[in-house]
Amino acid sequence: MSGERIIYLPLGGAGEIGMNAYVYGYGKPGEERLILVDLGVTFPDMDGTPGVDLILPDISWLKERRNRLDAIFITHAHEDHVGAIGHCWEELGAPVYARAFTAHIARLKMEDAGLSPEIVRTVSPWPETVEVGPFKIGFVPISHSIPESSGLVIDTPKGRVVHSGDFKIDETPVVGEPFDRALWEEVGKPGVKALICDSTNVFSGHAGRSEATVGPEIETLVREATGMVVATTFASNVARVKTLAEAAVRAGRSVCLLGRAMRRMIEASIKTGVLADFPTVVSPEEATQIPRENLMLIVTGSQGERRAASAQLARGKYQGLTMAEGDLFLFSSKTIPGNERGVIQIMNAFSEQGVDVVDDSSGKYHVSGHANRPDLETMHALVNPQLLVPMHGEHRHLREHVKVAGAAGRKGVLAVNGMMMDLSGNEPTVVEYVETGRTYLDGSVKIGALDGIVRDRIRMALNGHVIVTVILDEEDELLGEPWCEIMGLPEMGRNNAPLVDALEEDLSQFIGRAGDKTITDDDKLEEGLRRIARQTTQNEIGKKPEVTVVISRLA
Amino acid sequence: MSGERIIYLPLGGAGEIGMNAYVYGYGKPGEERLILVDLGVTFPDMDGTPGVDLILPDISWLKERRNRLDAIFITHAHEDHVGAIGHCWEELGAPVYARAFTAHIARLKMEDAGLSPEIVRTVSPWPETVEVGPFKIGFVPISHSIPESSGLVIDTPKGRVVHSGDFKIDETPVVGEPFDRALWEEVGKPGVKALICDSTNVFSGHAGRSEATVGPEIETLVREATGMVVATTFASNVARVKTLAEAAVRAGRSVCLLGRAMRRMIEASIKTGVLADFPTVVSPEEATQIPRENLMLIVTGSQGERRAASAQLARGKYQGLTMAEGDLFLFSSKTIPGNERGVIQIMNAFSEQGVDVVDDSSGKYHVSGHANRPDLETMHALVNPQLLVPMHGEHRHLREHVKVAGAAGRKGVLAVNGMMMDLSGNEPTVVEYVETGRTYLDGSVKIGALDGIVRDRIRMALNGHVIVTVILDEEDELLGEPWCEIMGLPEMGRNNAPLVDALEEDLSQFIGRAGDKTITDDDKLEEGLRRIARQTTQNEIGKKPEVTVVISRLA
Repeated sequence: MSGERIIYLPLGGAGEIGMNAYVYGYGKPGEERLILVDLGVTFPDMDGTPGVDLILPDISWLKERRNRLDAIFITHAHEDHVGAIGHCWEELGAPVYARAFTAHIARLKMEDAGLSPEIVRTVSPWPETVEVGPFKIGFVPISHSIPESSGLVIDTPKGRVVHSGDFKIDETPVVGEPFDRALWEEVGKPGVKALICDSTNVFSGHAGRSEATVGPEIETLVREATGMVVATTFASNVARVKTLAEAAVRAGRSVCLLGRAMRRMIEASIKTGVLADFPTVVSPEEATQIPRENLMLIVTGSQGERRAASAQLARGKYQGLTMAEGDLFLFSSKTIPGNERGVIQIMNAFSEQGVDVVDDSSGKYHVSGHANRPDLETMHALVNPQLLVPMHGEHRHLREHVKVAGAAGRKGVLAVNGMMMDLSGNEPTVVEYVETGRTYLDGSVKIGALDGIVRDRIRMALNGHVIVTVILDEEDELLGEPWCEIMGLPEMGRNNAPLVDALEEDLSQFIGRAGDKTITDDDKLEEGLRRIARQTTQNEIGKKPEVTVVISRLA
Repeated sequence: MSGERIIYLPLGGAGEIGMNAYVYGYGKPGEERLILVDLGVTFPDMDGTPGVDLILPDISWLKERRNRLDAIFITHAHEDHVGAIGHCWEELGAPVYARAFTAHIARLKMEDAGLSPEIVRTVSPWPETVEVGPFKIGFVPISHSIPESSGLVIDTPKGRVVHSGDFKIDETPVVGEPFDRALWEEVGKPGVKALICDSTNVFSGHAGRSEATVGPEIETLVREATGMVVATTFASNVARVKTLAEAAVRAGRSVCLLGRAMRRMIEASIKTGVLADFPTVVSPEEATQIPRENLMLIVTGSQGERRAASAQLARGKYQGLTMAEGDLFLFSSKTIPGNERGVIQIMNAFSEQGVDVVDDSSGKYHVSGHANRPDLETMHALVNPQLLVPMHGEHRHLREHVKVAGAAGRKGVLAVNGMMMDLSGNEPTVVEYVETGRTYLDGSVKIGALDGIVRDRIRMALNGHVIVTVILDEEDELLGEPWCEIMGLPEMGRNNAPLVDALEEDLSQFIGRAGDKTITDDDKLEEGLRRIARQTTQNEIGKKPEVTVVISRLA
């Protein structure tokens, strides 16, 4: 046992909120047996990743050591924890463990990717454990905003490490297991070397609120509504969906679920037994026959996603259903930073339809799924680790979380993606910096974030694109004139003359002036043509475009 | 006078927050003399307007009637009210009126655009008035977040209309005129036909807070800081800049202003006399010689703008100054929806430098410049108009503002951009719908929002760009092979073969199969080549790209 060590290496999720992927290892340096906790995605945006479908963690390091990887554990079924499993599993090839609800979702993702659902194994909660390599791992139920979320107890020959998973302290979570103080105290009892802990809400100074507090507020709102009520929340927040549905039923309304994710999550909850008593729902076709004051829709698209049900209702119609003057739309959700524009667009579209929109600004219709600062402190006290390692946060969250630990006299350490820490000693040490990054799923292909492909797209979006074609004959003489096409650029330049004409004239002159050394050398010719195309465009319209030069030589 | 009417026509600002441009008219239908109130911009973003420099209101309607336009009035110097004056003035050609501070900024914009600063005339506040055409216009001082903001009293032969301008009710605004209830009551006394009123903060239910409340909080923060303090706010919020600077001085710190806009605004304030006692500042060069615990920087970039001082400090260095562990960065500002990502990026960069970041989440270091709901109600009561017409808001704000009026038994009407209202009768009526929209300043050229140019850029950003070149000889025979270039697309397709190879092969085959009818017809050939290029790319990498086809025929 001497010379062996416990290592922790975040490949994603430490320095960002998204694409969680945490490696733990145990063994001799460089020979550690490894496990991976979570394998999630991040969502692209137009600012930095236009056209990208999904952002995955770069798991190259782990892939190169797949022979040392014993298992993958998924703490819960949020996309930022399980979303990459179908896209990345083949590169790793280890068995996947999760509790029933999470396993159900993970299997659907495996099937979507053409993989066997049997790769995913269902486990029972702690004190049952899974033994893989030198590890004994237990799934400890913890309250969050999705059923069967779990923290992990990771026992090694050199002691216990606890991975909190995403959590809040909620003793009345509506669906799923209440937060169990006694259980978490027990987890801490034998002594815990390190608690790797959710940091999302570290800047919220007040104690978090229970999921159960939302119900009465929503009930009042729905009861007082006179038209149709439409509510959106994260489909995976099954407790909230249930609360919304029950509020509808109590107000004498039929419930209709809209959006694939919404139905998929409720089905998964019922099949896996986490949801026993969900109200009967009507189909969209049936819903069209019900008077609107007797109807409530629960729909996807709380983040303003363009293709989701809420955005489609805002644009007009979804599955035969439309909004009308006097209806009410409820965002029972928080807008994730970066999604504001999309959400506001929907709010205004509803406003134009005469629909009243209620959001969470009052604080009544939504509660967070993450532990606020006082709740983090409670968790630290329950588990009482020798070391706190913040995870699941941007740099500022991790840094603040270390400060919170320090303020209570606890040792904390800031470990970001790629920092491999040795957790076995009395002092945490960085043993290695591993290259990490992002992989883009782009259409059906994976590309590296630094490949330059997305950078080129952004440049075309900012600067437009000029395509220059020249044809040279066997004697290196220009055949015809240089030919320009433009995309994403104004057609008319200064003096209201076509930009393309100005470009073709200047390029012709350039070729006329160019010596043999330039004309016969593709690289030099291309460079010259690009320079002229950029200059002329700058002169004509004040922009320096991206330029593609196509030189054809007739041989 | 019978047969004459007062009209109101928003060309920008009613249905959005930004690019304010409100037309008022008086006269016989179709022959009204016109004035324009404000001429502002909106800022572009990557989501909808990549590469665009500024968004201007489409003023075509007014341009076509410029012979009826008597004057342009600017209520205050915020970019969304004055920012388009340099870009659009030549199309309108009317004299511009503003109070001294606003006029100073407007003149700088005229000069930037190569226009005469003398076009802008300085006016004194109400009860002095400007007479243009049938109008008598008075600038009524009103508190906001920039010096010398004004509402307008617009007197016509058929009565008085009041345009609130942007405002809050602040009796201790630190810089500039306190809100004067008696003055506004006087404005309302003769009877007001309509109040056209700021709607920005209609969803804020509590009374607004005075600018003066921020000072003591900032002072405490700065006094307790141990390293350098850097604070950002809108440069135009001169009161806030003064508060920040005074807090520095009281804490024994030298003040250094960073960023062109920051220095420009303070200079304008001093020159025009709105700011009499601003602390002495040091230059950036001097600042580098001052111990950091004795220094405070006040910098531009509160919205995370990439080129502003705050972003540059976050990336490393600005004018020889750098941040260090233990420094404090204060956002004395609110993040405008849509700017969250940029601001958060800066916060995390500072976190990595060991800098503590304080923002407005505590509510202590920033107050809004707009009237909250109770303050709007106060304003309604003071002016007591026959009709309330909300402006300066998205659709949801305007709609809510009408509701607020209704709840107090007042008549309100929702008029969005392009709705021409007759305000002279007892009931407001829509007399015409005018086509409005957005004009993009793109490099040095103005383009229409619907021209398709920016749409093409967005498509290239989302889908990538394939360029197909084919050369046909005099007999319509293909010379060589079709040639493909790609930009913004993965190089490798399925089976790890180059995408370009797959494209060129499929395109060759298509041409080989194509009949004379296709080969000899540029349109048909182009269409066929585009279709194949899209299909093959879809097969290979799962994306349908934008395609440009260049067909060269050797004649």
